[in-house]
Amino acid sequence: MTVANNTIDSAPAPNPQASIQHERSQNRFDPETMHYFLESLKENAEAFKTIIQQLERDPILGNDASYYDLTKAQQREITARRIARVAQYLEMGESPLWETTRTSLLNLVDSQVGTRIGVNLGLFLGCIRGNGTEEQRNYWSTTKGTELLKNLYGCFGMTELAHGLNVAGLETTATFDKERDQFIINTPHIGATKWWIGGAAHSATHCAVYARLIVDGEDYGVKTFVVPLRDSAHNVMPGVTVGDIGAKMGRDGIDNGWIQFSHVRIPRFFMLQKFCKVSREGDVTMPPLEQLSYSALLGGRVQMVMDSYRWTARFATIALRYAVGRRQFKLASQGDGSETQLLNYPLHQRRLLPYLAQAYVFSVGAWKIDHTITETLDTLDKNVAAEDMGAIMKSIEDMKTLFIDSASAKSTATWLTADCIDQCRQSCGGHGYSAYNGFGKAYNDWVVQCTWEGDNSVLAMSVGKPIIRAVMAVLDLGKKQKSSLAFLNDAKKFNTKETILTSTDDVLDLKKALSAIEVLITRIAIQGAKVVTENDGNFDTVGAASLAISKLKAHLYFLSEYVKRISENEYKEMNPYLLKLGQLYATANVVEKFSGEFLGHSILSPELLNELTNKIVPQICKELRPDVIAYTDSFQFSDFALNSSIGKYDGNIYENYFGTVKTLNPHSVTKAPYSAEFELALNRPSLEVRDRFEKSEEAASILSK
Amino acid sequence: MTVANNTIDSAPAPNPQASIQHERSQNRFDPETMHYFLESLKENAEAFKTIIQQLERDPILGNDASYYDLTKAQQREITARRIARVAQYLEMGESPLWETTRTSLLNLVDSQVGTRIGVNLGLFLGCIRGNGTEEQRNYWSTTKGTELLKNLYGCFGMTELAHGLNVAGLETTATFDKERDQFIINTPHIGATKWWIGGAAHSATHCAVYARLIVDGEDYGVKTFVVPLRDSAHNVMPGVTVGDIGAKMGRDGIDNGWIQFSHVRIPRFFMLQKFCKVSREGDVTMPPLEQLSYSALLGGRVQMVMDSYRWTARFATIALRYAVGRRQFKLASQGDGSETQLLNYPLHQRRLLPYLAQAYVFSVGAWKIDHTITETLDTLDKNVAAEDMGAIMKSIEDMKTLFIDSASAKSTATWLTADCIDQCRQSCGGHGYSAYNGFGKAYNDWVVQCTWEGDNSVLAMSVGKPIIRAVMAVLDLGKKQKSSLAFLNDAKKFNTKETILTSTDDVLDLKKALSAIEVLITRIAIQGAKVVTENDGNFDTVGAASLAISKLKAHLYFLSEYVKRISENEYKEMNPYLLKLGQLYATANVVEKFSGEFLGHSILSPELLNELTNKIVPQICKELRPDVIAYTDSFQFSDFALNSSIGKYDGNIYENYFGTVKTLNPHSVTKAPYSAEFELALNRPSLEVRDRFEKSEEAASILSK
Repeated sequence: MTVANNTIDSAPAPNPQASIQHERSQNRFDPETMHYFLESLKENAEAFKTIIQQLERDPILGNDASYYDLTKAQQREITARRIARVAQYLEMGESPLWETTRTSLLNLVDSQVGTRIGVNLGLFLGCIRGNGTEEQRNYWSTTKGTELLKNLYGCFGMTELAHGLNVAGLETTATFDKERDQFIINTPHIGATKWWIGGAAHSATHCAVYARLIVDGEDYGVKTFVVPLRDSAHNVMPGVTVGDIGAKMGRDGIDNGWIQFSHVRIPRFFMLQKFCKVSREGDVTMPPLEQLSYSALLGGRVQMVMDSYRWTARFATIALRYAVGRRQFKLASQGDGSETQLLNYPLHQRRLLPYLAQAYVFSVGAWKIDHTITETLDTLDKNVAAEDMGAIMKSIEDMKTLFIDSASAKSTATWLTADCIDQCRQSCGGHGYSAYNGFGKAYNDWVVQCTWEGDNSVLAMSVGKPIIRAVMAVLDLGKKQKSSLAFLNDAKKFNTKETILTSTDDVLDLKKALSAIEVLITRIAIQGAKVVTENDGNFDTVGAASLAISKLKAHLYFLSEYVKRISENEYKEMNPYLLKLGQLYATANVVEKFSGEFLGHSILSPELLNELTNKIVPQICKELRPDVIAYTDSFQFSDFALNSSIGKYDGNIYENYFGTVKTLNPHSVTKAPYSAEFELALNRPSLEVRDRFEKSEEAASILSK
Repeated sequence: MTVANNTIDSAPAPNPQASIQHERSQNRFDPETMHYFLESLKENAEAFKTIIQQLERDPILGNDASYYDLTKAQQREITARRIARVAQYLEMGESPLWETTRTSLLNLVDSQVGTRIGVNLGLFLGCIRGNGTEEQRNYWSTTKGTELLKNLYGCFGMTELAHGLNVAGLETTATFDKERDQFIINTPHIGATKWWIGGAAHSATHCAVYARLIVDGEDYGVKTFVVPLRDSAHNVMPGVTVGDIGAKMGRDGIDNGWIQFSHVRIPRFFMLQKFCKVSREGDVTMPPLEQLSYSALLGGRVQMVMDSYRWTARFATIALRYAVGRRQFKLASQGDGSETQLLNYPLHQRRLLPYLAQAYVFSVGAWKIDHTITETLDTLDKNVAAEDMGAIMKSIEDMKTLFIDSASAKSTATWLTADCIDQCRQSCGGHGYSAYNGFGKAYNDWVVQCTWEGDNSVLAMSVGKPIIRAVMAVLDLGKKQKSSLAFLNDAKKFNTKETILTSTDDVLDLKKALSAIEVLITRIAIQGAKVVTENDGNFDTVGAASLAISKLKAHLYFLSEYVKRISENEYKEMNPYLLKLGQLYATANVVEKFSGEFLGHSILSPELLNELTNKIVPQICKELRPDVIAYTDSFQFSDFALNSSIGKYDGNIYENYFGTVKTLNPHSVTKAPYSAEFELALNRPSLEVRDRFEKSEEAASILSK
């Protein structure tokens, strides 16, 4: 008889924490230093730790497993309460770094709070920033208090019931009434009902409405208007109908709604008019370039790449810690009777370690693209303010590059993060299916990232098309490509069947792997160009190629930024560990995943692929295995941030998980609330009794007479 | 101004139902006849329609979109009520066909009811059937009423908190107390807590417990015991602790629980002793073959293949109907101003039509394997009863084949169905994320099928290993393989780099496609065998190959049964339409998905793959396009069975969806229950006021003195 923990056992109980603690004691690098790398800068890493602690200790923002038991109504309520709490932190006016860190971490620990605030601060104010004059921006954002979640609460009225992606086809109208100097906002039919509008159902006071500008019967296309939905007593305005769109697959804490406008009047100057203006007389000044007004969604896309990094890191940590602690089946070679740690199986390493690599590689790309968008939008704002058309055109070029990079990165990263959550869940077996281990809600909350602010498939198509066009321009017109597409300038040289990767050394050399991806993208694009030409220029025929191009372009972006970052890394002692993950990413996450494409375009030989699958990748995994706990500890997630019973730092999987289950579902309650009814059904009288013996032979003999 | 439906519109509203009805009017084959094919027999199809109607009209079993709004507590309650209702139908003693059809359809329309009943009728009684004597079976099943969900309610106590797959390693003990002629059931420590036990938390009265048989200190391995959990008043027995494991990713209507036994006594004859027996004196008779006792889980695996067919069909129908009705972006070629139907985009066809093919191909395999298991288990029972060891050995051979076929089919089909639900959801954009369109709950309910009753990865490994062994036996020992592995006998002939598919005609010839898959499996297995040999016989090193082998083996099974079935089809006029789907399956679902393997093993050339991707598959999709409504109508799902607002038969997507949203979330309620609190926060006093002006400069000047 042994006494283990707080319970008496009659045989030795499993001791998963010993495995994890033992591995932790063997750390070969310092997880805290690694965290500086992952968060890009030491000061970011420190802000991360401060904010996580602040959130964790806050009585309203702190979370635990009971979060997974909340009903939709409870989620809505707690989300609203948390928004109010975050507003108080915003008013304290800490540094911008702290504010962006808080946003980013809210997206991790309670994504519905993150989103519901993001709709206001990101989309609503982003739309005003992108389309309004500086005075309009100041008024709605600062004067009115919106930026502090005060007085006003904005929502973003773009999508309609029958129109999602095709913004130019939206059907809500904004008709100029010259006489009264007003716009009349109207929903002409059910299909034009604003739909999915986050915050509209109950929180929003105002909406940034995308509507067709109609002046004197002429349709000037879709512009943006600030339309009040509720008055200062939070009552819905006349002519405005809002409703709750109800239950969703996830993020039920967000009050997504629908809006119909029935001849709603707003003052002319509620139109956002940085680029497009309507004068008192109804003269319309059109924007120099329509693209300028589409920046509102870019910020969200970039944020989603950061979210992808953090969510991948979170679920890889949970699944890997579990795989270190969990034992399954015996190995003949082991004499002590203990079963083998899950993570010592090569297949399990193959299943999970690529997600560890994904988290590390995404981290660098996420910080990079975050930095790029800030710079690009700030420069654009400056150039617009200076009315410098040359500089504006240059900014638009940068925006185009950012569009391609962010569209491919957003779509690829959010898809791969969904895969990660799903595969990590499966790797934890049945325990992954328990709500208390976090995977279920996370998956449901996450996957909308693949759909909103640009459906991934459509975004991917929108990346494939310009790349195929660019390759056509290079080959047919000798037109040079710039910045992130410059590699296409070698299209002619690449347009062979030459093998690019010829040896194990090649495969492990990240620079060669990067060239291989460049050549592959180019060859797919050249093939795609041929198909387009054969189909009279119809790009719809190269959907599959566009998809592959977009994904490979994203991998190229992430991996090349990762390689660059390692070369500049001030914590050089981390580099061997970082390099190994990069090699796994290149081989397992890219080459193996696109093996059909790599072989089909002769980038490598079947023999080398075979070598890769059967030797190289297993070998890299084996080398990564001893440092798994250090790699995952490097994300510096507290138990609060992970919110998963089987993923806690101490590795005491079973006690933690059982403890959560028992706390939230006390076993002193032995009957369900509906038990009496169920018992009656189970112990029901016989069928004959219930049929009042009417179907008995006796009854038959009577009734037949 | 036009009046559309029941609302007044100021501009023409979208008219999706016109598209669907128009396409339906062009049907080139009869969906009802096609349904006979899909349900294997006309009488099955008719039972399907009768039972669906019966379920739909039943006041307790009928479902609508309000189902998606239920909390966990409500789901639990309604599930229990539905079980009681199903019991009444069972007592009516209709035909076995009706009963299996009802089970199958319950798994579709309310899978948690299906499962919660299945735990009792399938797992509990299946375990008793597989391990108990005929008298034991009759007693627990018929005499006590369990088979009618009466008096007794059984659960299946296999998995433990620290042991899932490794049944032989379970740690619950059943110690024989010779003096009192009883077994003492005991949970030695937390890790041996029975975990995930469906029905244990609140419904079950008895449990089929897997426990180690200990007699006179000797451990005879894991056997099965019937252990009462609750008395006739439904109170938990002394020594038994049960608890609710709480919230899950899905299927919250099932009361999964945990059980600990603290020295619980049961009579000796509560042990199931068809094979293993313990005499009054404690003499143990061991079973002739341990495998004989593992049949309980096979039935569930086979059922999951049928579920895969129906769920794939359901979500393909919803997504395809939506894609016919939904319009997006304009095509330059269209002059009427209407946008293009989503399904007219080649990429959208590529995304969805393979799932239509999957449903059709799965249907045939599901019926086939269902038939095989019934036959195999019945024959085994007969042979065991006759004590004919030769015949028993033959049955065991058939069981082994069934094990491989069902393990690869279950794992592959459940994974692909999860993909189907997920991809179909994504293809519906934001509307796919609404709970009311069915995808969210379906995905959450579905994915546990990939984990339970044999984790898919482990099942796949368990298929790869014997196939690699078999190829070794063929090549090294010239040992002939039988039944579904007979194709491996040509291993020597296949072990070349010869190209198998050389032309478009080859690719479209299903017989050639089947040989190509056989050759591919063989070549991967040969390569795997080499790796195993190089690694001293360690099969853990060929996890990735095993996974590929298992998936390809499943495709081989499904596609070959499909081809066979078409050749025997009495409704010959359907064959051209069936053939086309088979061709799409072979090309898009198999060759393209495994393009790395097909190229890597030279089954086809990169040029032919290019042709396949850019011409053949798009061409098949184009040819399937006009019949999509007929193909999906052929599943004969009523709106009740689909339970999806955007997937209804009439195609009136927007009115149906908006109607559901408004009914379930009345927009006359304009404020959330927590609105007052939120309004207070939004209209909060200034920070200075809330700080009682203590941080003002005035206060500073006072306090600094």
